[in-house]
Amino acid sequence: MVAFGGNALLRSGQKGTYQEQLANVEQTCEQLFNLVKQGYFLAIGHGNGPQVGTVMLQQEAGRQMFDLASMPMDYCGAQTQGAIAYMIEQGMARVLVKNGLNRRVVSLVTQVVVDKDDPLFKNPTKPVGPYYTREQAEKFHAETGAIYREDPKGNGWRKVVASPKPVRINNIEIIRYLVEVGNIVITVGGGGIPVIEEDGMYTGVEAVIDKDLASALCASQIRADALFILTDVPKVYLNFRKPGERALDVITVDQAKQYLAEGHFTEGSMAPKIRAGIFFVEHGGKECIITEAGQLDNPACGTRIIRQ
Amino acid sequence: MVAFGGNALLRSGQKGTYQEQLANVEQTCEQLFNLVKQGYFLAIGHGNGPQVGTVMLQQEAGRQMFDLASMPMDYCGAQTQGAIAYMIEQGMARVLVKNGLNRRVVSLVTQVVVDKDDPLFKNPTKPVGPYYTREQAEKFHAETGAIYREDPKGNGWRKVVASPKPVRINNIEIIRYLVEVGNIVITVGGGGIPVIEEDGMYTGVEAVIDKDLASALCASQIRADALFILTDVPKVYLNFRKPGERALDVITVDQAKQYLAEGHFTEGSMAPKIRAGIFFVEHGGKECIITEAGQLDNPACGTRIIRQ
Repeated sequence: MVAFGGNALLRSGQKGTYQEQLANVEQTCEQLFNLVKQGYFLAIGHGNGPQVGTVMLQQEAGRQMFDLASMPMDYCGAQTQGAIAYMIEQGMARVLVKNGLNRRVVSLVTQVVVDKDDPLFKNPTKPVGPYYTREQAEKFHAETGAIYREDPKGNGWRKVVASPKPVRINNIEIIRYLVEVGNIVITVGGGGIPVIEEDGMYTGVEAVIDKDLASALCASQIRADALFILTDVPKVYLNFRKPGERALDVITVDQAKQYLAEGHFTEGSMAPKIRAGIFFVEHGGKECIITEAGQLDNPACGTRIIRQ
Repeated sequence: MVAFGGNALLRSGQKGTYQEQLANVEQTCEQLFNLVKQGYFLAIGHGNGPQVGTVMLQQEAGRQMFDLASMPMDYCGAQTQGAIAYMIEQGMARVLVKNGLNRRVVSLVTQVVVDKDDPLFKNPTKPVGPYYTREQAEKFHAETGAIYREDPKGNGWRKVVASPKPVRINNIEIIRYLVEVGNIVITVGGGGIPVIEEDGMYTGVEAVIDKDLASALCASQIRADALFILTDVPKVYLNFRKPGERALDVITVDQAKQYLAEGHFTEGSMAPKIRAGIFFVEHGGKECIITEAGQLDNPACGTRIIRQ
């Protein structure tokens, strides 16, 4: 299983046109193809940060200009699952054809169950969507119950949502089957559409599931040999960008936990990737490799987290 | 296989809020459940007209207010596949739980191949998206090559796209397998994301594939026993809403063709449904049933198109 961010497709500095995103996705797929060449059957989990941000801005603009109903984040997330999966399908199909390989690429709309009593719901901290005035934020809060917080940089008020832990992936048996028979499967887009379960029924919630953690859960449940978490550095470092910086080749789960506790990894950046890697290896996975996409042609790339 | 329109979820007269759409979808799923009770393994094809219209308006608003890049129709269609499938998954899962039945509901992002030399591309007639001024339309045409036509009712200029014939459904073998083993499968949303094939690679095109025709193709290729096409009348009529109106119970393909030629069926409404039914029965299907969702509790409902 491989996980990468939505910014692999919609990069900072770009406007995010369709042609830009298609070019980015094809490059990413060329890099992922190295895993196929190494013999891996591939499941792909991806982020959606820039894309869902765009959808939320478009919704806000549509609300103001055309009085269109705005949809909650779970609906927006489902939109980005369709759109991003479609682009990855296109890019991967092109790379497969260029390399003369016949594999199907198939994308599932994927709900991920979170616990409605997850304590992380009590303190939503992840800012999403457009900036509003204080008055707008208070009005929306009264209408929908959503929480808004003032941006520390003074840009205005923004909705904040929780980032609960993924508990269960809907249709995981189907995902596993489709990968096992050789398809390249795209799933848990944006970390999955977050839903809570009550009386056996599912309801969407406004939240963002960490895509690396959702991919780690998926990887463990489809019994993946390896979880590749892609980022923008070739390896994990101790004392990153500080005196004594040291790249890590192979670390055990215990070492990873120790380095985490020592504060070597930034929250919102490397720390969640390390936690996802630990989760995978503690739940049956053999190894988690953290690296950048451009390194995938080297089977010994990145930093490996192993059991012991 | 059952096909229904996007207006089963976002109804005219409603604002299209999430709660409205979820309530509509759950009602539709309750009606579809009658087919499950009758023993059918179910594949669901759905339209996306109102939803993709909303996305295109939101994009236009986002372009004007926030200078966001607008995406072409294939990308917008993929967005609606994700969002609508998610709502149907939710609604169907609720109905299954209420009825104590354990079936998985699984949704595939679905590309549908059209012929790049389809003569229908030469004369695009289907209006989509927002209205523009003549100057805007000319500017967009120069930028993108898209065709704009003046609205006959004087509302402005609108993009028009072709409605080419569906030729092939991507991943059809996977759709067939997933249905055959008992899953409820949601696919060909909005008629499928239209793509053309060149040198084995696929490229999205701005077009709208008729969802009934795409569902008919899907139904024939998954070897469905029956194709249900849902509409807002219980049966097909000769002389509809005219003197001598007569409901049809069972007609052969030859009769259907004759009535079509005699002009009994409105273009853009019943005529494409009849054509989809003919296509299905001429490509291995046993019967196509055209009816409204509320009739599905009656196994003898609607108008049946049979071979002879």
